[in-house]
Amino acid sequence: MSPHRKLVLDKITEILSVTPDEYEDRLTAMVDAAEQVFVGGMGRSGLVTKFFVMRLMHAGYKAFVLGETVTPAIRKGDLFIVISGSGETGSMITNAKKAKEVGAKVVLLTAKSSSTLAEIADEVLQIGTDDSYAKVKGLPMGTMFELSTLIFLEAMVSHIIHEKGIPEEKMRERHANLE
Amino acid sequence: MSPHRKLVLDKITEILSVTPDEYEDRLTAMVDAAEQVFVGGMGRSGLVTKFFVMRLMHAGYKAFVLGETVTPAIRKGDLFIVISGSGETGSMITNAKKAKEVGAKVVLLTAKSSSTLAEIADEVLQIGTDDSYAKVKGLPMGTMFELSTLIFLEAMVSHIIHEKGIPEEKMRERHANLE
Amino acid sequence: MSPHRKLVLDKITEILSVTPDEYEDRLTAMVDAAEQVFVGGMGRSGLVTKFFVMRLMHAGYKAFVLGETVTPAIRKGDLFIVISGSGETGSMITNAKKAKEVGAKVVLLTAKSSSTLAEIADEVLQIGTDDSYAKVKGLPMGTMFELSTLIFLEAMVSHIIHEKGIPEEKMRERHANLE
Amino acid sequence: MSPHRKLVLDKITEILSVTPDEYEDRLTAMVDAAEQVFVGGMGRSGLVTKFFVMRLMHAGYKAFVLGETVTPAIRKGDLFIVISGSGETGSMITNAKKAKEVGAKVVLLTAKSSSTLAEIADEVLQIGTDDSYAKVKGLPMGTMFELSTLIFLEAMVSHIIHEKGIPEEKMRERHANLE
Repeated sequence: MSPHRKLVLDKITEILSVTPDEYEDRLTAMVDAAEQVFVGGMGRSGLVTKFFVMRLMHAGYKAFVLGETVTPAIRKGDLFIVISGSGETGSMITNAKKAKEVGAKVVLLTAKSSSTLAEIADEVLQIGTDDSYAKVKGLPMGTMFELSTLIFLEAMVSHIIHEKGIPEEKMRERHANLE
Repeated sequence: MSPHRKLVLDKITEILSVTPDEYEDRLTAMVDAAEQVFVGGMGRSGLVTKFFVMRLMHAGYKAFVLGETVTPAIRKGDLFIVISGSGETGSMITNAKKAKEVGAKVVLLTAKSSSTLAEIADEVLQIGTDDSYAKVKGLPMGTMFELSTLIFLEAMVSHIIHEKGIPEEKMRERHANLE
Repeated sequence: MSPHRKLVLDKITEILSVTPDEYEDRLTAMVDAAEQVFVGGMGRSGLVTKFFVMRLMHAGYKAFVLGETVTPAIRKGDLFIVISGSGETGSMITNAKKAKEVGAKVVLLTAKSSSTLAEIADEVLQIGTDDSYAKVKGLPMGTMFELSTLIFLEAMVSHIIHEKGIPEEKMRERHANLE
Repeated sequence: MSPHRKLVLDKITEILSVTPDEYEDRLTAMVDAAEQVFVGGMGRSGLVTKFFVMRLMHAGYKAFVLGETVTPAIRKGDLFIVISGSGETGSMITNAKKAKEVGAKVVLLTAKSSSTLAEIADEVLQIGTDDSYAKVKGLPMGTMFELSTLIFLEAMVSHIIHEKGIPEEKMRERHANLE
């Protein structure tokens, strides 16, 4: 395999190896307990939210991405999943506070053990550890957090599919047929 | 009022004056009869779809914009509203055919009395007439169709609110409270 | 014309009649003086930013919508146009402060004569007056500000096209030919 | 590591191991030879295009995602990168034909060795082989193609950064500072 592919995959493997194995169970429990799930993040973390929410919708959940046209108001009984590497994204701090105010739960996916968002959130799922994100040439800015979080969430989808026995055919039926 | 504002408003007024008054009733009936409403368009017509779908959601309808993360599959019993000035937008022709195949209804909002999409659609709502869209300097490409269709759809929202007596407070409660 | 179309158009006309006529000139001067133009707004105001930025691009300006993939950093010499009815949109306050910090100019399009954003901005273009936005049944939440601002900006595009003599053919050549 | 994370990572590793190592060089050469780069895909492949284009912009390229507000017309001398697992995505076939018509180059990233898009494209970069994509429970629909293509493109970004010695600081300066 080309050295750059190996670099990326080795780093994700390293990070997900030190990320607690029970996270899939914990996040699934929170998602299952919620009436509606909202997922938010900025920039490339925002793209990660869309990968995940599309699959939640395919799996039959009522899930929304922040900022899309049909995203409704969050209410008591709902879950807000925030993706923020630094835990300091300004608009997400505002959103997390609002979610708490209305009585929704907040879970943070982050690279840091402590941050403003970590203090607000009901649960913090740290992807990797505080030592996982030393600078690596070729993997600029939040690259490793974004990719590791994406792969974690794809694993989470696999976990849900297996646990609930959701047939692929059922997911395909829900998938958009208009482009 | 500045001459350019007057130019735009006069042109919209002219177009909506020759657009049949019963359209609000006809489109409301179709939207009410549908289980889910899908709205699609390309470019600036795509922006018009988002203005409209957000208000449909606020008004309590199950409505979706083509291409967003949580947009599900269209099925029998649903309605597909296509916005296409020319009636010849390639991807929308494909979508309209698929919508018909699954047994959904298709309504076209367009500038032309005849087109490929007009032949596929169950109903055609022509905004203005074939004579409405002569070139006007300062209002390039589809400007007048897009703006006239937007104002028509905002009027349609007003029509729905009055007819069903939807309180603004109710709409505000559904409005996204996370940014 | 149907009463709801008339309601919407009369209200826009009323608002744009009391909006100073020199705004088109003032905003054009600011846009022309900038190296790059950034336009931001939330919700339906965010849709208005896209209508406008697409035409600026067609007209040959280097313009960007906040939140899109290729939007670069704002720098000294650039212009940030904020659309906020209330002038109190949280994320836009943060953005306006950042824009000022790097030495960019900020212009606010708003419904209110005074607000947090109005204090930060170098120039404030109030669309209508403080008396323009009494509640009207059928035109919920920010409807009248959004539509009036959109029509004002379309008039501004017409103004630019006339002033600089930009041929429609030239704009069409820049328009996306991939969907 | 949890079994689902391992499942996803093993499958990506397997696919990228049988993907020719020279692809990074070939695609870099095409990107470097182009005046402007356009990247297109539908659904989750569309999200992959955004991950990639944001980094191309950070690295100093003139790159665009299909469907965003400021995406201009493609012209002779430009490159169109299409991401399509099946190679049969309707709108992308139309786009690839248009790109060829104006004299742009087309490169396809795909899961299949032969397809309609493969026939149109100047170059085909198959991610994995025709045997790579047997159904795996938990990894529905195009999951493995999308993730493998994303990791390949992140590796490609790393390749460009190393080859051209682009400092992270330089990329960070170009990164959007307004949210």
